[in-house]
Amino acid sequence: MPEIERKFLVRELPPGLGEHRAEPIAQGYLATAPDGVEVRIRRRGDATLLTVKSGPAMVRVEEEIAIEADRFDALWPLTAGRRLDKVRHYVPLEDGLVVELDVYGGALDGLMTAEIEFPAEAAALAFSPPPWLGEEVTGDPAYANQNLAVRRPAPGRPPG
Amino acid sequence: MPEIERKFLVRELPPGLGEHRAEPIAQGYLATAPDGVEVRIRRRGDATLLTVKSGPAMVRVEEEIAIEADRFDALWPLTAGRRLDKVRHYVPLEDGLVVELDVYGGALDGLMTAEIEFPAEAAALAFSPPPWLGEEVTGDPAYANQNLAVRRPAPGRPPG
Repeated sequence: MPEIERKFLVRELPPGLGEHRAEPIAQGYLATAPDGVEVRIRRRGDATLLTVKSGPAMVRVEEEIAIEADRFDALWPLTAGRRLDKVRHYVPLEDGLVVELDVYGGALDGLMTAEIEFPAEAAALAFSPPPWLGEEVTGDPAYANQNLAVRRPAPGRPPG
Repeated sequence: MPEIERKFLVRELPPGLGEHRAEPIAQGYLATAPDGVEVRIRRRGDATLLTVKSGPAMVRVEEEIAIEADRFDALWPLTAGRRLDKVRHYVPLEDGLVVELDVYGGALDGLMTAEIEFPAEAAALAFSPPPWLGEEVTGDPAYANQNLAVRRPAPGRPPG
């Protein structure tokens, strides 16, 4: 089942952010094929995962494989130069929707993005973003994590 | 621990090949990074595996992750154009050494390679290949499986 998502930049942090669940995410890309197939590893809270995703022109495949922490540690050096870290905040909206608000660190310090997954296309189209969300960047490859992980912004000029 | 291996082309099939253990291998590459990190999936007999290997200039890492057959089947389409299949024969020599003799199929029909793993460097240096082995291709990138999987030889002219 394809995910129905919209992605936005974040104008300002929403009120009451500290009350919601949040977890640190460190992710690194092992490799990406010319057709866009990507393989990444991620530590999210205490969980360590390896994920394979299909490229944009393919039938969508996403396989998430739980791996042991030891294996994650062994693989992490292979992602040098292709990493990002962020804190993900889960901000509830009405209608059961949840904003995944990512605050990036390291080389991407200053960047904040938000993704909302919808149960159906109609809900995605009807969605009216709260005022703390900014420009919509759904489908913009510049904000794909795979690209952010290798993006090196000029000093003093954070992207977004 | 680094593996100590030598690799050869195969001049002719050794006598008694049918008496030794053999298994079909289908493998496909999900993605390869510019620094050589590669992620492949392989079905070897009944086993299905995802393997991540470091690039040549890195500290050697090789992680082999057993995956369910269902997951293998879901991932296999992502390797289109980056696959190879072969039958691996395990041919015992003296001193407990075993030749892994790979007979390739499909686009690589006609190619046969052999790899021998040694317990120590001295044994690798002292090794005297049996007469059915041909040219040594240890370290030759042309015979790395990652490259063979995307190699398309001219019709009627099998590589090797």
